[in-house]
Amino acid sequence: MALIVQKYGGTSVGTVEKIENVAERLIAAKKEGHDVVVAVSAMSGETNRLVEMAHQISDKPDPREYDVLVSTGEQVTIALLAMALKQRGYDARSYTGSQVHILTDSAHTKARILDIDEANIRADLDKGRVVIVAGFQGKDEHGNITTLGRGGSDTTAVALAAALKADECQIYTDVDGVYTTDPRVVPDARRLEKITFEEMLEMASLGSKVLQIRSVEFAGKYNVKLRVLSSFVDGPGTLITFEEDNMEQAAISGIAFNRDEAKLTILGVPDQPGVAYNILGSIGEANIEVDMIIQNVGDDGTTDFTFTVHRNDYQHALDILNNTAKELNAREVVGDNAIVKISLVGVGMRSHAGIASQMFKALADEGINIRMISTSEIKISVVIDEKYLELGVRALHSAFGLDEPKD
Amino acid sequence: MALIVQKYGGTSVGTVEKIENVAERLIAAKKEGHDVVVAVSAMSGETNRLVEMAHQISDKPDPREYDVLVSTGEQVTIALLAMALKQRGYDARSYTGSQVHILTDSAHTKARILDIDEANIRADLDKGRVVIVAGFQGKDEHGNITTLGRGGSDTTAVALAAALKADECQIYTDVDGVYTTDPRVVPDARRLEKITFEEMLEMASLGSKVLQIRSVEFAGKYNVKLRVLSSFVDGPGTLITFEEDNMEQAAISGIAFNRDEAKLTILGVPDQPGVAYNILGSIGEANIEVDMIIQNVGDDGTTDFTFTVHRNDYQHALDILNNTAKELNAREVVGDNAIVKISLVGVGMRSHAGIASQMFKALADEGINIRMISTSEIKISVVIDEKYLELGVRALHSAFGLDEPKD
Repeated sequence: MALIVQKYGGTSVGTVEKIENVAERLIAAKKEGHDVVVAVSAMSGETNRLVEMAHQISDKPDPREYDVLVSTGEQVTIALLAMALKQRGYDARSYTGSQVHILTDSAHTKARILDIDEANIRADLDKGRVVIVAGFQGKDEHGNITTLGRGGSDTTAVALAAALKADECQIYTDVDGVYTTDPRVVPDARRLEKITFEEMLEMASLGSKVLQIRSVEFAGKYNVKLRVLSSFVDGPGTLITFEEDNMEQAAISGIAFNRDEAKLTILGVPDQPGVAYNILGSIGEANIEVDMIIQNVGDDGTTDFTFTVHRNDYQHALDILNNTAKELNAREVVGDNAIVKISLVGVGMRSHAGIASQMFKALADEGINIRMISTSEIKISVVIDEKYLELGVRALHSAFGLDEPKD
Repeated sequence: MALIVQKYGGTSVGTVEKIENVAERLIAAKKEGHDVVVAVSAMSGETNRLVEMAHQISDKPDPREYDVLVSTGEQVTIALLAMALKQRGYDARSYTGSQVHILTDSAHTKARILDIDEANIRADLDKGRVVIVAGFQGKDEHGNITTLGRGGSDTTAVALAAALKADECQIYTDVDGVYTTDPRVVPDARRLEKITFEEMLEMASLGSKVLQIRSVEFAGKYNVKLRVLSSFVDGPGTLITFEEDNMEQAAISGIAFNRDEAKLTILGVPDQPGVAYNILGSIGEANIEVDMIIQNVGDDGTTDFTFTVHRNDYQHALDILNNTAKELNAREVVGDNAIVKISLVGVGMRSHAGIASQMFKALADEGINIRMISTSEIKISVVIDEKYLELGVRALHSAFGLDEPKD
């Protein structure tokens, strides 16, 4: 008998019928003898419906009241799910974030969890109840309702698992695990049995949107065993673990990619201290997030400076950079918003030499030109032309043997 | 400068636009220099939408979870209304029933308010804020969300007014006051400037559904000055008061009627102690509410016993009564579900003799046969054939001078 925290997202509870399916899954876990705590999101579409009403009133709705509004979404789900369990003869009890004392800071719409009082939950579990907690929400020290921002239900589940020292935190979603890469791009993509937290962080931040980054960080920090599973298909899913030595021994675990990139270069900037700050300062002030940054110094005392931004920010960044170029007496600004980023991710990379050259060769063999390169301890990223995305990912997937099942 | 509690029902906040209209009304009250606390209902249709989902899961949804579910309706309204005020530059703060510590008993779906902690509200008022409270809901001593049952938002407003010792509790609705009778039946029906609590109770229980009975009782108990006004039309509305001596001096304040009545008679019951209990006991056990009761004893040692029930319960009551008739050796059971009840209501009745005979004459002059009569201290009710409803109400309205404006 184990203590399991489960989390079901918006699509998994999108209709009354789907909520009843979730009830059946919880009953199955109870029948296996487990104690079960579950965090749920709002029914899909519900949050958008609420936000739309808020935006009819104001372009920038008051954040405190915004949280009061959108937190009703999960409250509907917890009540319906508890009813469904009771209707099937299983005792259950729903709790809003406030009721279960999920204490957060007061940063409305993007609050962070500070503490959870697990006493009520334990008492209910001792009585054999399924405990149902509204994801995504909490309250601050003054009793104001707060929300954790999009995807916050994952964080709620992980925080509950940490507070309760649960044996496993199971994130039910519409995919049946973490894949070596996106199966829509590479049909041979394979579900991973396990992946490390670090790899998962790199995969998530690179656009493999299975889990929210913050929940993964949180799980790593509190040693919570995370598992990603499908709400619709039975299967073991993918375990996200902090035990590297238990990992598959492949150098590369997966290939992530991101289509939403754009690249900007300022050429011939007189090289002097503070040049990077001068270039990126005004970009940052405009709230544009910068991803990759590369700087090369040339022979003539000038430097070329390249960075990538989200494609939506491309035009805005280009305008800013043109101004900066004038101020800095730079030669020219060029940009490209038809690029993508592909990344190899794997903790095995640390101990395997030659991964980078193997990667570059695989791309060269397909005639794909590399436009930027950036590396970290467990990741190598390249920027290539958008048109080569599929070819590049497939070539790498095969070159690193990701389509071959592991023991 | 006064402290005013306002209450807006579901139709008054039925759309985002209407919520914005309510914001404008609150701002108008602020501009007049008043402190304003407002209780609001769920947007019309919202509660039904939620209840429908619950009924997809269970014919009899768990009451605790039912309250968790439906209480989201008002929570949406308070947030949107607070946003609308903030958007217009007025400080406001929303509170759920739990947040403002509306303490109730644990009778889910029909809880009663025990206490309100007004400290937070006073602090907000001192800061110049409009305080917005979710109607219809509270929490019990264990922190469970409770609801007060349909119409509970009126009760919330009155309870807030009582706790805060407000100068007036204004109930905004879709009618502009309490009328001498239903204007759809009598076009000359006149809005009353004032009505006593007792009269209001009789009017409400007889089907003039302007205010919930419980909120009127509550207001009377705590000496809260209640006023009924329209959300859509400006006007003074009707003041509901406990000061009889300030009242208009007419004997009759209004005419209430109820179309949903049915009448059953058991004839020739051998008269013996306990006969009334024998007849009504089984009706009560079937959860059928009985309204009027009349018993006449004849010369032959038998009695005739007549009572009225809601028309929906007619067939069920008839079946039960036929069984009872056999057990009691009664002669016959007869019934009629094409009847209505008309009542004259007025505290002035106490000091005016002859109201009853005046009433019976007015009906006789129109050839209307009276089928049952029942009287209380401030009310005379008659049951007549359904087809005479309009004729009867108009005749009485005119006979008692209700269509003539008062000074």
